[in-house]
Amino acid sequence: MHHFHYREGELCCEDVGIRAIAEEVGTPFYLYSRATLTRHFRAFDEAFAGTPHLLCYSAKANSGMAVIKTLADLGCGLDIVSGGELYRGLAAGVTPQKIVYSGVGKTAGEIDFALTKGILQFNVESFDELAVIDARARELGKTAPVALRVNPDVDPKTHPYISTGLKKNKFGIAKEYALDFYRKAASLGNIKPTGVTFHIGSQITQTGPFVEAVQSMAPIVAALRESGLSIQYLDVGGGLGISYDNEAPPLPGEYAAAIRQAMAGIDLTVIAEPGRAIVGNAGILVTRVLYEKEGPAKKFLVVDAGMNDLLRPSIYGAYHAVWPVRKTEGEITADVVGPICESGDFLAKDRKMAAARPGDLLAVMSAGAYGMSMSSNYNSRPRAAEIMVSENRFVVVRQRETYEDLVRGESAFS
Amino acid sequence: MHHFHYREGELCCEDVGIRAIAEEVGTPFYLYSRATLTRHFRAFDEAFAGTPHLLCYSAKANSGMAVIKTLADLGCGLDIVSGGELYRGLAAGVTPQKIVYSGVGKTAGEIDFALTKGILQFNVESFDELAVIDARARELGKTAPVALRVNPDVDPKTHPYISTGLKKNKFGIAKEYALDFYRKAASLGNIKPTGVTFHIGSQITQTGPFVEAVQSMAPIVAALRESGLSIQYLDVGGGLGISYDNEAPPLPGEYAAAIRQAMAGIDLTVIAEPGRAIVGNAGILVTRVLYEKEGPAKKFLVVDAGMNDLLRPSIYGAYHAVWPVRKTEGEITADVVGPICESGDFLAKDRKMAAARPGDLLAVMSAGAYGMSMSSNYNSRPRAAEIMVSENRFVVVRQRETYEDLVRGESAFS
Repeated sequence: MHHFHYREGELCCEDVGIRAIAEEVGTPFYLYSRATLTRHFRAFDEAFAGTPHLLCYSAKANSGMAVIKTLADLGCGLDIVSGGELYRGLAAGVTPQKIVYSGVGKTAGEIDFALTKGILQFNVESFDELAVIDARARELGKTAPVALRVNPDVDPKTHPYISTGLKKNKFGIAKEYALDFYRKAASLGNIKPTGVTFHIGSQITQTGPFVEAVQSMAPIVAALRESGLSIQYLDVGGGLGISYDNEAPPLPGEYAAAIRQAMAGIDLTVIAEPGRAIVGNAGILVTRVLYEKEGPAKKFLVVDAGMNDLLRPSIYGAYHAVWPVRKTEGEITADVVGPICESGDFLAKDRKMAAARPGDLLAVMSAGAYGMSMSSNYNSRPRAAEIMVSENRFVVVRQRETYEDLVRGESAFS
Repeated sequence: MHHFHYREGELCCEDVGIRAIAEEVGTPFYLYSRATLTRHFRAFDEAFAGTPHLLCYSAKANSGMAVIKTLADLGCGLDIVSGGELYRGLAAGVTPQKIVYSGVGKTAGEIDFALTKGILQFNVESFDELAVIDARARELGKTAPVALRVNPDVDPKTHPYISTGLKKNKFGIAKEYALDFYRKAASLGNIKPTGVTFHIGSQITQTGPFVEAVQSMAPIVAALRESGLSIQYLDVGGGLGISYDNEAPPLPGEYAAAIRQAMAGIDLTVIAEPGRAIVGNAGILVTRVLYEKEGPAKKFLVVDAGMNDLLRPSIYGAYHAVWPVRKTEGEITADVVGPICESGDFLAKDRKMAAARPGDLLAVMSAGAYGMSMSSNYNSRPRAAEIMVSENRFVVVRQRETYEDLVRGESAFS
């Protein structure tokens, strides 16, 4: 459920007409609904009520300060994967004790940053990393709370680039080595094992893979407890899908119920890391049609947003619905393409959609997650502005980049 | 030919050891050889000697100020695809009369910018765009010099995302409509047709498609002249490939000879737009191994550069050679992966390569083109530094981004 809807033929975000925003800030821009973010966070939080839990929003989906702060103000924690995300989280007011740090490539500098701030848990991905964390903690006189990312070898049935829990993936450590890992961890002077974690992928549209993964953790948790380790957290990762087209992913309630049921008998605090499920449908990309082109083979609408703004169609072949900002009569079939000079620059292909003409505004839906966070300056295009709406008010939460921004920090050879 | 080579087992760029640069500026970083850029420009320039010609380096391959200025100082022009690239070109000292402006999505503001600066030619991609350029020129009291981008429907036999001259692509106008286009252009008050252009793709490794495309322009040029239009330029686009692995693309001399031969009898100034062929092998990405991971299915080297730094392997399945910065004994087969949290984040897959251990530096070769220009802040990672070497000296030509840079222009909703 989101708060983008038509009123008298005009697309609105909550109580604000999108055309008015476009006239004031220009195009393209990302637009987020604060009520939708809030609603999504609460849906997860209520779904886990009665079970000790912590929601750690996955910053990589959208690390905008306004998004993180909106969630932090509701009590949400943060799942980070870099020092940059830690910096953002702290700046947005997230409590360090609600931050978990995932990712295969933590540098010594990033580990120091997290140790100094006192985060809740490092989700560790390799023996090498464990040794580095111990060494850094010793150097700083700290004890590092860690969970092992166990690879459950569960197939999430999603795009190969975003499935992460298979044996052939770079993530985690195979189940078979889990006990070795914890034995090693417990033997290190500056490491404290506090949890177990897994993460099987992204845009998952059924509960089965989550249940399977939780169940495969149960014997590991039992064995760790038997060996005298006091494990407190089961971090079930993120990955719940959203509806881009006609997918029907489980609702937060169904997702939480499945996890709670699979955890029956495992007495641990659940950490869940929803990202896309919180922000995906809370944001759209608004763009203007520049040109209409009737080729011999197909019709093109050239718009002012490109793959540098929204990479997902190009890199994953992802589907995003395209809605007219003002409803029109008639229907066309067209490719919606951007200004970037490559054929991979498209937002929609062979799309049946509402008729649109140069000057019209289009809304690329479900663009809140992995939209702005993956955007670039390719073709020397300044990155888009970001706007957040709450009820009848909108705020520019990230200024559109300027040409001067493009060359910041650069110089010629001299 | 490039200037990255081993001296006593240490990889050098011209006369500078790469390890010394890494120790001073940290990793990851892009590294460019000025002598290689110069050599590549001269190879093209000499290959066209005797034929009236203008080389317009294609800024989208790498729009760094230091790269553009190096080429501009040698007399090179610029092929731009956005207002941002025009801004960069002018700042780097390119003469406006050596700038051609390509691309399907020029905005009114960008067209105004180019008209005001007095560029050589707009390469126009649609009837809609022609009308907008005329209107903007009228408003500004200018005459816009234009070429039509004719779609020759030639298959360049390359990746579908970077083939651009097929009927199903968004680019150009079909040959059949070319004469209509010029008739229309000639009838508009503020348009002056000055050229004909095509562009068939990128990373093309044979001369045949170029020859075919030039030949298909000949009857169009003849017809335009018959109708009394004074066409001066044939812009043959860019697209000459480089050797990433074992490709053997034509040398600039062979490429130019093929084009000159195909143009026999067409008395026009050639504009050529090499991008990748100039900068691709003039740059590398230097990264450090963070962790070694022996999974049940394969070995991983986790390095500190990711798909946010170099997107090509992920988006195109592109091959980049990986060299050790210090030669090692032995060979391994591994995936070289970055710190980004998705399985699509890899630099090399199942790669037979020199043995490498945590702490070692690796050089990702042929990364000068579509490397930094496509880089992003995905996972809130600051973008890499860029270094240029000339003989025995290196200069930081773009500072590594900081955490503060990541949040510039942002604010929370309040």
